[in-house]
Amino acid sequence: MYRSNTCGELRQDNIDTEVTLAGWVSRIRKMGGMTFIDLRDRYGITQLSFDQKINHDLFEQANKLGREYVIQVTGIVKERSSKNPHLPTGDIEIIVSKLNILNAAKTPPFTIDNETDGGDDIRMKYRYLDLRREVVRKNLELRHQLAFETRRYLNERSFLEVETPVLIGSTPEGARDFVVPSRMNQGEFYALPQSPQLFKQLLMVSGFDRYFQIVKCFRDEDLRADRQPEFTQIDCEMSFVQQEDVLTMFEGLAKHVFKTIKGIELSDFPRMTYADAMKYYGSDKPDIRFEMKFNELKDLTKGQDFVVFDSAEYVGAICAEGCAAYTRKQIDELTDFVKRPQIGAKGLIYVRYNTDGSIKSSVDKFYSQEILLTWIERCGAKPGDLLLILAGDTEKTQKQLGELRLEMGSRLGLRDKQDYRCLWIVDFPLLEKDEELGRYFAKHHPFTSPKAEDIPLLDTDPGAVRANAYDIVINGVEVGGGSIRIHDSNLQKKMFSVLGFTEERAQEQFGFLMDAFRYGAPPHGGIAFGLDRFVSILAGLDSIRDCIAFPKNTAGRDVMIDAPSRIEQEQLDELGLIIKKKP
Amino acid sequence: MYRSNTCGELRQDNIDTEVTLAGWVSRIRKMGGMTFIDLRDRYGITQLSFDQKINHDLFEQANKLGREYVIQVTGIVKERSSKNPHLPTGDIEIIVSKLNILNAAKTPPFTIDNETDGGDDIRMKYRYLDLRREVVRKNLELRHQLAFETRRYLNERSFLEVETPVLIGSTPEGARDFVVPSRMNQGEFYALPQSPQLFKQLLMVSGFDRYFQIVKCFRDEDLRADRQPEFTQIDCEMSFVQQEDVLTMFEGLAKHVFKTIKGIELSDFPRMTYADAMKYYGSDKPDIRFEMKFNELKDLTKGQDFVVFDSAEYVGAICAEGCAAYTRKQIDELTDFVKRPQIGAKGLIYVRYNTDGSIKSSVDKFYSQEILLTWIERCGAKPGDLLLILAGDTEKTQKQLGELRLEMGSRLGLRDKQDYRCLWIVDFPLLEKDEELGRYFAKHHPFTSPKAEDIPLLDTDPGAVRANAYDIVINGVEVGGGSIRIHDSNLQKKMFSVLGFTEERAQEQFGFLMDAFRYGAPPHGGIAFGLDRFVSILAGLDSIRDCIAFPKNTAGRDVMIDAPSRIEQEQLDELGLIIKKKP
Repeated sequence: MYRSNTCGELRQDNIDTEVTLAGWVSRIRKMGGMTFIDLRDRYGITQLSFDQKINHDLFEQANKLGREYVIQVTGIVKERSSKNPHLPTGDIEIIVSKLNILNAAKTPPFTIDNETDGGDDIRMKYRYLDLRREVVRKNLELRHQLAFETRRYLNERSFLEVETPVLIGSTPEGARDFVVPSRMNQGEFYALPQSPQLFKQLLMVSGFDRYFQIVKCFRDEDLRADRQPEFTQIDCEMSFVQQEDVLTMFEGLAKHVFKTIKGIELSDFPRMTYADAMKYYGSDKPDIRFEMKFNELKDLTKGQDFVVFDSAEYVGAICAEGCAAYTRKQIDELTDFVKRPQIGAKGLIYVRYNTDGSIKSSVDKFYSQEILLTWIERCGAKPGDLLLILAGDTEKTQKQLGELRLEMGSRLGLRDKQDYRCLWIVDFPLLEKDEELGRYFAKHHPFTSPKAEDIPLLDTDPGAVRANAYDIVINGVEVGGGSIRIHDSNLQKKMFSVLGFTEERAQEQFGFLMDAFRYGAPPHGGIAFGLDRFVSILAGLDSIRDCIAFPKNTAGRDVMIDAPSRIEQEQLDELGLIIKKKP
Repeated sequence: MYRSNTCGELRQDNIDTEVTLAGWVSRIRKMGGMTFIDLRDRYGITQLSFDQKINHDLFEQANKLGREYVIQVTGIVKERSSKNPHLPTGDIEIIVSKLNILNAAKTPPFTIDNETDGGDDIRMKYRYLDLRREVVRKNLELRHQLAFETRRYLNERSFLEVETPVLIGSTPEGARDFVVPSRMNQGEFYALPQSPQLFKQLLMVSGFDRYFQIVKCFRDEDLRADRQPEFTQIDCEMSFVQQEDVLTMFEGLAKHVFKTIKGIELSDFPRMTYADAMKYYGSDKPDIRFEMKFNELKDLTKGQDFVVFDSAEYVGAICAEGCAAYTRKQIDELTDFVKRPQIGAKGLIYVRYNTDGSIKSSVDKFYSQEILLTWIERCGAKPGDLLLILAGDTEKTQKQLGELRLEMGSRLGLRDKQDYRCLWIVDFPLLEKDEELGRYFAKHHPFTSPKAEDIPLLDTDPGAVRANAYDIVINGVEVGGGSIRIHDSNLQKKMFSVLGFTEERAQEQFGFLMDAFRYGAPPHGGIAFGLDRFVSILAGLDSIRDCIAFPKNTAGRDVMIDAPSRIEQEQLDELGLIIKKKP
């Protein structure tokens, strides 16, 4: 061992003992005849002291060290004359008697510090240096803890972690599968799993009862800023359960994680139906750190010849507390915000309910003070509040109003990253209609079970059928989701027919799982959490990128190792593949 | 929840309580007016009792159930009149009052029983049914436990589990890489990692200090019976360590695993040099459950005109205790064994040291009783023992004698699967000479560090340089291996030159890691365990196949899901690939 202690553990108790430390030179301060070095390792920073008067040679050696040199030192722990209360080791320093350079270092291309001068691109190219920064490393420590505590919780509850294969088969609907050419079976391909869904359901048929896996999944799709081609799921499945059992089990997991990692005791998670989430928040992942629910005003706006509202299917308002004094400029900013193409509203109506009780609105021309007052009452506004109103098609407008609500929440400082609000969204619609194609698609996947009481609606009003499907949402982010699966083959057949599958096509596409189900499938259901997303929430990050040790960029490239890349002709020949020339 | 209890937990204490169970119909016994059903789930088997006299309808229903039906029953726990001491639940049975068929089942293609009538092929095709068998499931439970206890041990010792990427770059030497065509970067490919070696070393450069990962790795090679294209490693790396530190840490892990999973306290692992392992066991993974070391006889065989021994570089013997009475037929079997092409010996010489003190040998013609006695003494044989002797080139003959030793160990019942003997093999040669090409190759990989005292030999006798490399061997199986890495760039350059790399080629092939090392690499080293192999040892299995939930066959196929398979033309087009027509 190159060290007797780490750089994070020495305290007053260790004074006068001889220790050996090893680490990186983080900072060098030369003060006349004294040189101080901050020695850094994963566990902390310890100050090394070199005194010209005590050991001239050593002092000279120390002065020649560069940033990020790897050194080993031996010395006596002494009390510092000027202590550093911000550092756990701030009471002590090492009076070095022996210095050994383990490795020299080129000057890094950016400073290894929490506040670095390195931009995103250079940090990613030199990710191995970026990972030396405490802020980045902490995210990965958190990731480790989250995975470990998840396993501990599930292990204690008889879940078995079972590894499912990474080299699987491509499915006809797997357009976004990454594929892997087989050398031994030329012309054939494996696919990388988008999720272990098939295998976890098979494990339930196998009687594994409680399965989980923290597992890499893959999706070859055009990457949005916050997607990665490979991502990690906490994938779980249970047999002989109903929705309530799954919710209880995994609410428990979330509570366990928050308690052990963040020291936070979460209270029971509220349940909200998908319908309510859309009606009150315009989102199936509402951020409930703040209220500011939607209020529908349509009925209070009729007959005043204001064509925007009269022609709108939906008129909805949020009440921004204490914002009546917003300036013209601030209101214009909000108007610009909702008119951005990503949001797409045509305009924004406001009603100021001033502190003196007067009312001022952008639709004063059309609506009397009395009418405006009915809106104010509907919204529960107090003097000093501001109503922000959008109108249009119900679904679109609710989504737009939802975005505006989040923006107002941010502006009003109502979205504290250390304030965690979890909830379940339940009763998702089973099916989604593709208006263009005029047919229904499964909102989750075709094995999601409808609510028993809604099964008759499959014939009469498929769009109204609710699923035994649920999402767990934290601070406006969908962290996980799942469903109870269909285990009855007649219901499954019915489902396929609603989805417009012929029996042949259903057999071709899903026959394998359906065959397995004929040999005695238990009732079962499960959930999958996005680990990257979960970590980013716990770490208070906006992006998942910094929760991943070696992420890829939005073009799917690892700029550090420069992958993907060309391969040798020999390899292509062995695989029996030809690369098409670009036209 | 469909049940109040599992099928494994009811005992005498539960008598007279009402319970609800759910599971699979494992066995139905009809005895006149009584029908008994063994209800099975992952946790055990509980006997259900249906009495015609008590409830005729229910009795009739029960009689109609088929094997592997999934049912739910409610009833009262009662003491059994004839108890089954082999079953943890054997004291009780359930007098069923309610029966609910959750799912019917087709008759499975083989019996779901520890002793099944299903052959390998059908079991793999219906793996989801095979996994219902307790013997198979137990292996996967063990696998879960091994992974969990490994994580617990390493977590307690400040190791961080860090996920490294699965989509990485192909290296010029990565001839056995699986590759993944990139859609977004047409003509370019990712590769699947054969190990996270590069990334774990980078994490040490990043200051992660202690890393581990239980991770899938991939190798596209022609499969031997006991290899899989995807396999799982327990991959570990530590900074600021010497070989001794790594050995201590991971000997501790092995002990922890054996103690928590098997309840076995292992004593300290012996260390054996590679040279001794070859000299005494003819193998770098000796099975030390039994002694039977090699004895070299060459010096005792000279000058008697026996050309086989005189022309041989090496003459070695093992002493098979108590086997002097082996029949001609038994000796012939052994001769045939060593002459098999996989072993390749030309013949086998024996010396019987009979219980009456007489000596009988197949080379009596050439050697006097006095000379044979010197052999006997050299081997420490007692009356009643049998010497088995092979001769030829040293290396080949030692390997052949090693195989014969294992065969004799098996014949003599000295290889008890429940007797675990672990050891470290150390001081591996750093380099291996390819006699045909006349140059040296790295035995592990080019980053393995030579022993400090052997560095001068790099110039004079490279083949004699020993590495800081080590393997952990259990019962003759290499369960893990690793090394201390080179962290000094001058030594690394030296190593490349010995390996015959030009500076350009070294830069091209390994430049990326060498660049990283210039920014301050700590001394580091690590180890990787083969999880599949480790489980198979703990489970007492000969193959890794049954430790894997969904394995592939020797052609790399998953016969259950029928992968790999053809993909759609559309997908090939998107990837810019053409499949070469077979000639």
